Amino acid sequence: MEPKQIKEILEWVQQGKLNIEDAVEKIKHFPYEDLKDAKVDHHRPFRKGFPETIFCPGKTADQIIRICKSMMSRNTNVLATRCEKEVFNLVKKEIRKAKYHEFARVFTVIQKPVQYRDGYIAVVCAGTGDIPVAEECAVTCETYGSHVERIYDVGVAGIHRLFDQLPKIRSAVAVIVCAGMEGALPSVVAGLIDKPVIGVPTSIGYGANFKGVSALLGMLNTCASGLTVVNIDNGFGAATFAVTIHQLVSPLQS
Amino acid sequence: MEPKQIKEILEWVQQGKLNIEDAVEKIKHFPYEDLKDAKVDHHRPFRKGFPETIFCPGKTADQIIRICKSMMSRNTNVLATRCEKEVFNLVKKEIRKAKYHEFARVFTVIQKPVQYRDGYIAVVCAGTGDIPVAEECAVTCETYGSHVERIYDVGVAGIHRLFDQLPKIRSAVAVIVCAGMEGALPSVVAGLIDKPVIGVPTSIGYGANFKGVSALLGMLNTCASGLTVVNIDNGFGAATFAVTIHQLVSPLQS
Amino acid sequence: MEPKQIKEILEWVQQGKLNIEDAVEKIKHFPYEDLKDAKVDHHRPFRKGFPETIFCPGKTADQIIRICKSMMSRNTNVLATRCEKEVFNLVKKEIRKAKYHEFARVFTVIQKPVQYRDGYIAVVCAGTGDIPVAEECAVTCETYGSHVERIYDVGVAGIHRLFDQLPKIRSAVAVIVCAGMEGALPSVVAGLIDKPVIGVPTSIGYGANFKGVSALLGMLNTCASGLTVVNIDNGFGAATFAVTIHQLVSPLQS
Amino acid sequence: MEPKQIKEILEWVQQGKLNIEDAVEKIKHFPYEDLKDAKVDHHRPFRKGFPETIFCPGKTADQIIRICKSMMSRNTNVLATRCEKEVFNLVKKEIRKAKYHEFARVFTVIQKPVQYRDGYIAVVCAGTGDIPVAEECAVTCETYGSHVERIYDVGVAGIHRLFDQLPKIRSAVAVIVCAGMEGALPSVVAGLIDKPVIGVPTSIGYGANFKGVSALLGMLNTCASGLTVVNIDNGFGAATFAVTIHQLVSPLQS
Amino acid sequence: MEPKQIKEILEWVQQGKLNIEDAVEKIKHFPYEDLKDAKVDHHRPFRKGFPETIFCPGKTADQIIRICKSMMSRNTNVLATRCEKEVFNLVKKEIRKAKYHEFARVFTVIQKPVQYRDGYIAVVCAGTGDIPVAEECAVTCETYGSHVERIYDVGVAGIHRLFDQLPKIRSAVAVIVCAGMEGALPSVVAGLIDKPVIGVPTSIGYGANFKGVSALLGMLNTCASGLTVVNIDNGFGAATFAVTIHQLVSPLQS
Amino acid sequence: MEPKQIKEILEWVQQGKLNIEDAVEKIKHFPYEDLKDAKVDHHRPFRKGFPETIFCPGKTADQIIRICKSMMSRNTNVLATRCEKEVFNLVKKEIRKAKYHEFARVFTVIQKPVQYRDGYIAVVCAGTGDIPVAEECAVTCETYGSHVERIYDVGVAGIHRLFDQLPKIRSAVAVIVCAGMEGALPSVVAGLIDKPVIGVPTSIGYGANFKGVSALLGMLNTCASGLTVVNIDNGFGAATFAVTIHQLVSPLQS
Amino acid sequence: MEPKQIKEILEWVQQGKLNIEDAVEKIKHFPYEDLKDAKVDHHRPFRKGFPETIFCPGKTADQIIRICKSMMSRNTNVLATRCEKEVFNLVKKEIRKAKYHEFARVFTVIQKPVQYRDGYIAVVCAGTGDIPVAEECAVTCETYGSHVERIYDVGVAGIHRLFDQLPKIRSAVAVIVCAGMEGALPSVVAGLIDKPVIGVPTSIGYGANFKGVSALLGMLNTCASGLTVVNIDNGFGAATFAVTIHQLVSPLQS
Amino acid sequence: MEPKQIKEILEWVQQGKLNIEDAVEKIKHFPYEDLKDAKVDHHRPFRKGFPETIFCPGKTADQIIRICKSMMSRNTNVLATRCEKEVFNLVKKEIRKAKYHEFARVFTVIQKPVQYRDGYIAVVCAGTGDIPVAEECAVTCETYGSHVERIYDVGVAGIHRLFDQLPKIRSAVAVIVCAGMEGALPSVVAGLIDKPVIGVPTSIGYGANFKGVSALLGMLNTCASGLTVVNIDNGFGAATFAVTIHQLVSPLQS
Repeated sequence: MEPKQIKEILEWVQQGKLNIEDAVEKIKHFPYEDLKDAKVDHHRPFRKGFPETIFCPGKTADQIIRICKSMMSRNTNVLATRCEKEVFNLVKKEIRKAKYHEFARVFTVIQKPVQYRDGYIAVVCAGTGDIPVAEECAVTCETYGSHVERIYDVGVAGIHRLFDQLPKIRSAVAVIVCAGMEGALPSVVAGLIDKPVIGVPTSIGYGANFKGVSALLGMLNTCASGLTVVNIDNGFGAATFAVTIHQLVSPLQS
Repeated sequence: MEPKQIKEILEWVQQGKLNIEDAVEKIKHFPYEDLKDAKVDHHRPFRKGFPETIFCPGKTADQIIRICKSMMSRNTNVLATRCEKEVFNLVKKEIRKAKYHEFARVFTVIQKPVQYRDGYIAVVCAGTGDIPVAEECAVTCETYGSHVERIYDVGVAGIHRLFDQLPKIRSAVAVIVCAGMEGALPSVVAGLIDKPVIGVPTSIGYGANFKGVSALLGMLNTCASGLTVVNIDNGFGAATFAVTIHQLVSPLQS
Repeated sequence: MEPKQIKEILEWVQQGKLNIEDAVEKIKHFPYEDLKDAKVDHHRPFRKGFPETIFCPGKTADQIIRICKSMMSRNTNVLATRCEKEVFNLVKKEIRKAKYHEFARVFTVIQKPVQYRDGYIAVVCAGTGDIPVAEECAVTCETYGSHVERIYDVGVAGIHRLFDQLPKIRSAVAVIVCAGMEGALPSVVAGLIDKPVIGVPTSIGYGANFKGVSALLGMLNTCASGLTVVNIDNGFGAATFAVTIHQLVSPLQS
Repeated sequence: MEPKQIKEILEWVQQGKLNIEDAVEKIKHFPYEDLKDAKVDHHRPFRKGFPETIFCPGKTADQIIRICKSMMSRNTNVLATRCEKEVFNLVKKEIRKAKYHEFARVFTVIQKPVQYRDGYIAVVCAGTGDIPVAEECAVTCETYGSHVERIYDVGVAGIHRLFDQLPKIRSAVAVIVCAGMEGALPSVVAGLIDKPVIGVPTSIGYGANFKGVSALLGMLNTCASGLTVVNIDNGFGAATFAVTIHQLVSPLQS
Repeated sequence: MEPKQIKEILEWVQQGKLNIEDAVEKIKHFPYEDLKDAKVDHHRPFRKGFPETIFCPGKTADQIIRICKSMMSRNTNVLATRCEKEVFNLVKKEIRKAKYHEFARVFTVIQKPVQYRDGYIAVVCAGTGDIPVAEECAVTCETYGSHVERIYDVGVAGIHRLFDQLPKIRSAVAVIVCAGMEGALPSVVAGLIDKPVIGVPTSIGYGANFKGVSALLGMLNTCASGLTVVNIDNGFGAATFAVTIHQLVSPLQS
Repeated sequence: MEPKQIKEILEWVQQGKLNIEDAVEKIKHFPYEDLKDAKVDHHRPFRKGFPETIFCPGKTADQIIRICKSMMSRNTNVLATRCEKEVFNLVKKEIRKAKYHEFARVFTVIQKPVQYRDGYIAVVCAGTGDIPVAEECAVTCETYGSHVERIYDVGVAGIHRLFDQLPKIRSAVAVIVCAGMEGALPSVVAGLIDKPVIGVPTSIGYGANFKGVSALLGMLNTCASGLTVVNIDNGFGAATFAVTIHQLVSPLQS
Repeated sequence: MEPKQIKEILEWVQQGKLNIEDAVEKIKHFPYEDLKDAKVDHHRPFRKGFPETIFCPGKTADQIIRICKSMMSRNTNVLATRCEKEVFNLVKKEIRKAKYHEFARVFTVIQKPVQYRDGYIAVVCAGTGDIPVAEECAVTCETYGSHVERIYDVGVAGIHRLFDQLPKIRSAVAVIVCAGMEGALPSVVAGLIDKPVIGVPTSIGYGANFKGVSALLGMLNTCASGLTVVNIDNGFGAATFAVTIHQLVSPLQS
Repeated sequence: MEPKQIKEILEWVQQGKLNIEDAVEKIKHFPYEDLKDAKVDHHRPFRKGFPETIFCPGKTADQIIRICKSMMSRNTNVLATRCEKEVFNLVKKEIRKAKYHEFARVFTVIQKPVQYRDGYIAVVCAGTGDIPVAEECAVTCETYGSHVERIYDVGVAGIHRLFDQLPKIRSAVAVIVCAGMEGALPSVVAGLIDKPVIGVPTSIGYGANFKGVSALLGMLNTCASGLTVVNIDNGFGAATFAVTIHQLVSPLQS
């Protein structure tokens, strides 16, 4: 809706290529499809570099299926996050191509083969319990065209396990670090490398972890530079951010 | 301290180029200088891509001066953040080259001219009150080799002011958005562009903003993708993160 | 219980139209019916403009039925909120006229046709997950005599979807905006129109949304003027407030 | 920036009344004036019904003066809130017409006489300590064309003081109730009248009031209907909201 | 274990009535019975005026039964709070005299008839949802010898319902007021009467009530005098406190 | 304003002793005096047993003096709490009889000699730092007719200091226990005696005491019975509550 | 990975006992075994004095079994905490030697007999509800070679029960005190003895205990010296800390 | 006040060595001296192993001096913490031997030479800003007979600085680690050594560190074993705990 777009349409109008009514319609209706209870943002691939994702909680299976189909009708690959197994089973009946990623609680519908960028994103996690969040990161990256190196269970209680993996971490384009409890691992990693590090606090822990708050605060208050943070358990958000960086560094031909 | 470094030193030892005592010393003492109350990390430029920064709160003017001089002795440019005017005045007496950036509450000591990367980082802020944090971002970026476009006072209460600036924002390599109160601006920006957006919640506001918590939570819970967050008022952290991305995209020749 | 009412009764007493015992009784017992575990406020329609509503949580089906019947005996339409489907099924057996609004988790008993005011209230929501709260708003408005325009799934991640709907929003008497996560939508709307906007934070989100706190704080700390807020998920409260305004602007003939 | 405006400009372009460059400029630059560190929103009177207000904290006296003058150049009355006496004294030297409202910590510059609507807004407060917030409400209402009835120190510790004032409260178009500590007064008022009640929690109290949080939570969790809430101490926000309602009910001729 | 008791035992020792070993034993073992996983405090009736109560959560049915029997062996009446129906059913099989108070989630074993004091305690609650907590108060008072007047559903949304009940409230020895949501009722009551008022915040509400925190803060920050507070939902604590006052004013002959 | 009062006035009206206008006036104006910014509640002594108290924070010296004089004109003793020394000095100039209690930060104006009840209230505190709050309790009790036993610095770090004082504590009518930090002392005291114990959490401590929250939570979650709590540092509230009990047990002849 | 170890390996390399590749491998792979989703830290017994423990939440039965077997292959005794009965039943099928400690929700696999140190650790708890946490402490201590004295249900509501047990507590090497609700017991114990006291706040309680926060804050704000704290319900952490002290005082021969 | 002490006194009484009055006096008055506003606990050295410490905040200089002199009269060395320089200057006038430790904000009065234990305590801190807390630890340890190794500014942003110091840390009897911000250092240290580690969260940081809460939560939620925590900035508490351990391992001859 920015000046450049307005200008182009204005020029068409001035040159008689477009009448006024159509111009207004164009500006208004171009970017989304109205399913009444959902307005699917078909403009997003152009604006953001990847399509709208379906965040499943609070949506009925029926709503998910309808949004899916709306996206599939535009030949878009689909990624749906936080999808319970039971909900997926209902989706699967309608959309045979849908594939469930168990650990990540994610399903994808791949209609056209994913194109991959050069280089990879490292997905690191502190403990075995953080793996579901790490997998949400990894599957999201892979669906949107970034290869992933998985480096799991290297938390600070046994910091030598991390040091062994440092070369693999250092060679990544960007690094996502998932950690619960005290959330110290992203700070330690960010202190050791010169790539952007994205911390994902997880809700793993108990008592005074307050469902991830301790890890979140730990990462926000990092003494290391080069670290930013997303919401607790938001593997998807970290992944799309990392892919955004990856796209800048090694853009896909399109 | 990672395998590659150890291996190199091991090879020197095996080849007789280095005796054992010296090797141990090398590994141990290489990266920092011990001022007793501070251990200056001279290794950081190699590890992180830019030198250690002096975070002034809690340090005496004397400590700041000693750390400064230790860094200057290595021919490093110095950046010191959150420096009160009165403290800077004491520093200035000892270090004539130091320059104070009033709005940013930052001082710099530039010993060798800053080299700049291609492209720029956009620093956006929502209100006039957010400018000190935005300036901390801007001066940090500029000190570490990134040009900056400043786009101030474009908050959502008058969202048309933002739309006018979108082309300048879209052309940046990375975008930093500082906002207090409800902290909605970074979400709106991230929804409109395909570059990495780093949100800096500021402590501007009153009452239920809880010194920046409302803005912080707003940014962490963004419904837009491509947004990560740093600590409240942490302009420095956002800037170094953006520079890290900039360096990946348009590396400095060194 | 205010001076005017006291004065009227005093006049009746002075004029011999009412003896003292009856006067005291009148003042004491007029406004409610005592079911022991509930005191139904039959005076409320006169005092507030619409009848007492039944808030179901913590009440047994039996209690709900008894309160319903007490209200029905006064020929009042009944609105009951936050009613689980199972509880409604028990109510339905006793009160055949009761109708369940599935998405809104509300039931109504309409005994006399609802009279409608001129104009309408716009009910806007940010995401599909916010629809249950938005529907609680909409059904409440409709039960109390206000037409509703529903505008759903227009959150700030794709802000162009909102702009398309602005004319419909601008023409409303009052606007209710439901949003979870960062709760930015009410601020954006309030910045663009000159009608009263009532924000309803929803508990949609996860992690650092703290069950709606992020959205609540976002709305309370709005930089836009013309926005007030109700409790998290309190669609009913926003609706009765909007109806109160609607009644002022286009009063029902009664 | 909505379709209707775009359409109008498109028509001018189509009819040759406006060339394309000018049209783009018009759309882009119309609504605000860029002072670099502040972007004054001259469009707001048309969009919101009253002009942008200056929120003083975090602005230098110089910035305040420049914004003031920018607004005065458009013949707009100026309202500036949360202005410390010392800052006002600096403003006063430059802007002789500025007037300070001591209790309200507000200054106004009245260039054209305020036009008043029929009816009034009631501003109620619970204790003497809440008066500064109540005065911020009252002065804001008066500056924007609404008469005010002030009803102060009628908190629930001596609830008879409130009952005496009920007729005056009931006759208002809208009611603003400021209360600190437990914040119970707005609920009690909203339970007794059929006008919109806007609660303003104040930071008055100590200990577990957490600077107004107890009052805020009290108001958000009201058991009465017809009550909405603004941020702690946000007298200005409550006032503009009440004026928005007042304008709907008794519009100013303009 | 205070000086007077020590002195008495010392005198017996000095007078040869007690040897040292026995004296030590007496001081050590007198007050409780050791069931290993529970140490039943048989001394409490003498120290506190009523026996130890069994708080059921976290205890197995078996543990509850053993503590019960230990108390019954001393001819003490038993009160057990927060007992789930299923757990009670297991208890009932072993202890036939046990009686369940459904609303209060309490069971009692009355072995010797309760003696009652003159006067009564008023138990007031704001809404129907607060009744379980109010009943915990009422049953506790009655078990420990205080008559109770129950006054339910008189919250501030319809404050006239309260005023009608004031005479009954004013004549009580002490008043317990249970309220959830904004918790305003205890303040209103305390403002109107000259008896000690004990506020019990309940967890009734949703959203920003934070499971009773809003009511708790409301009561703690009361502007009325003569009000103290207990933990959220702690009907038992309020009741024993009220009984303690009742015992001071109208002591039981014992 | 309850039925009995209304009935009496109604009877006067019926008997011609009072005309209607006067009756309304009587009901409306009887209980307070309107100073505009303060409404002094002269009815409170009759309703609550002791006069309104002046809570100084947020009031100007002038306001305090005017309220004082209004109360003095009714021959009431005055108690003003949380009064800074500098404010008192201004008051003293106008009201020569005013007396400052340094530790308690309280001033009193005693116009008629205080009458004392039989028995006393024990005021206990855990540490030396809690003395200001304890003194606020003690002076309030003494002003309102209750003798006080002060028992200071007996916290649980050296619990033997408490045991020595138990007889004096046990003989009191009611016990107020002030404690900061972990706030454990009231629980320990309440576990040992059979009198009502009122806990006053103080803001003494640092770090995770959060200005008294740790002590407040400690007291609210007591495992002992017979303990209720007031707001942090609210010595006045605890004292008036204790006096209310004292008055029930040993009423003053009046 | 510290200098001494590096030096030793360097010496081997210099002396030709080890070639470089092998040395690097040694340093890298020595301390853990990579199961991909878990990296078992076999180095921990040497570094910490006892083996890695399995924290079960968030791990599948299959993962637990594989980690178990990896540890058993090194002839290490296994301790697994927070293991649900159902999960254990699956483990038991694969690992016949595994033994479940019901109250502690812990299982152990003892392959070589536990060696015990001289002296013992006292495990104290305040109420019956705290026993599961206390048992987690006790079983952990016993598995790692420390005898335990269990002292349960001695909370401050009946403080004489504690005093009777003091000699047993005083003779311990270290004392662990578990308490929920106000968490006062550790402070009282620490005030009375000269041994290190470790407080374990438990989540026992309700309402304003906020799942253990009240107890945690109580212990952190202790007025007694000689007390440190672990996370809420972290019996395991307190136990390993106590064993670490025990090992210092009475080291096992190994 | 435990059985053994009682028994001894009882024996004296039985044997006629002590009469009853004196025995009671002995038990009551032995352990403290009553200065009215402070009760100095002279018994503490025997009970706890070191004397009562003066916590200065909230105490007047006069009170501090009187407590000091009371302790000095028993020939006890004095330690006073959190003493502002100005307050110390007043103390110094009265107590010439008092010595101020500037960084630690502590003063000591050494009357008899401190005896030292074998071995030492390591005091580690993460940043220069944490030094005041670390110095409070160090001076406390030294005053109570433990040598200290100071290891400062070794935070995780440059973790190699820590590794160099590991041998010195590993050889300590106990380790105190002070860290602000994310508080990760204690976890990293505890993961690497087999000695008890005591974490001291400091209030260093800003924004979402909430004055030390982030560091506190980080340490409480540690994934490493062998770590316990004290209150924010509580260097004194950590030190006395460490000394308690040191005394167990290397007891002073006394």
